[in-house]
Amino acid sequence: MSGTALRILGIDPGLRVTGFGVIDKVGNKLGYVSSGCIRTDDKTSLPERIRTILDGLAEVIAAHRPHEAAVEIVFVNVNPQSTLLLGQARGAAIAALVTADLQVAEYTALQVKQAVVGHGKAAKEQVQQMVRRLLSLPGDPSPDAADALACAICHAHGGQGLGALSTRGYRVRNGRLV
Amino acid sequence: MSGTALRILGIDPGLRVTGFGVIDKVGNKLGYVSSGCIRTDDKTSLPERIRTILDGLAEVIAAHRPHEAAVEIVFVNVNPQSTLLLGQARGAAIAALVTADLQVAEYTALQVKQAVVGHGKAAKEQVQQMVRRLLSLPGDPSPDAADALACAICHAHGGQGLGALSTRGYRVRNGRLV
Repeated sequence: MSGTALRILGIDPGLRVTGFGVIDKVGNKLGYVSSGCIRTDDKTSLPERIRTILDGLAEVIAAHRPHEAAVEIVFVNVNPQSTLLLGQARGAAIAALVTADLQVAEYTALQVKQAVVGHGKAAKEQVQQMVRRLLSLPGDPSPDAADALACAICHAHGGQGLGALSTRGYRVRNGRLV
Repeated sequence: MSGTALRILGIDPGLRVTGFGVIDKVGNKLGYVSSGCIRTDDKTSLPERIRTILDGLAEVIAAHRPHEAAVEIVFVNVNPQSTLLLGQARGAAIAALVTADLQVAEYTALQVKQAVVGHGKAAKEQVQQMVRRLLSLPGDPSPDAADALACAICHAHGGQGLGALSTRGYRVRNGRLV
């Protein structure tokens, strides 16, 4: 990737597992940089788990120096206590991004799926496969990392679906989606 | 207050209003230091509101340099969307404390009321009045600040009710309260 790349950090927040994915966008080309998960120990206190998320994201940001960040808008859970825990994890993740002076965009799961698969009802496996194709990965990324990468891809596409995508000049070149 | 005071920052988290209260504990004596509210603009995005909470708490921490922090455990709301928003605000507040390397204790509203009023079913006005008495304030603090101060008082009492206060056995080691 050239020096004019826009580096995007995508986040799929969760208290147990926070997925992250870093991609570069140069013109209409996307390139994979890094992805993974930050796992917290559910035997420790909430403040300690939040510290793990903050430290993990600070490490990712220090290592890859993204220019912008995108965070998936989480679902409200059937269980109110789970919703509260998820909200706290998401608040902490956004806090880590804001502390690093990153602009933070938010996208719903629907927007992310539309941007990556082309429609909002895509299954998790389809998201993984399309992320793999769009970023030319040798194998499917893990589900958490795939969602984070998909969120970054959605942001790279300006939050638009694939419909808008094709008119923005994406096409297959040398057997790759570009 | 002398140099051996334990300074405690109490937080009553909320997305719209985050209350804070700072108190000093020397032996079994409590002293008021500061209190107030951080208000966010509901016309701005969630990341911007989280930034306001982070910046506000960072300012309070820089101004008063607390040694420990206590955060009220929030209620699950009837509205799941409100629960999610509240969770995010609370996660951000804990993130601000953890970023400042503060140990964070958590207390339920029940524990806070027991510590301040003596029973868990106290009304908001009773909490305000008892906070005023315990800290020798000239007037009742605002409800948000009162809850934050009450949370700090609860932490000063070791999370115990008023009865346990005097028997807790806090002592000074190397010139510090331990």
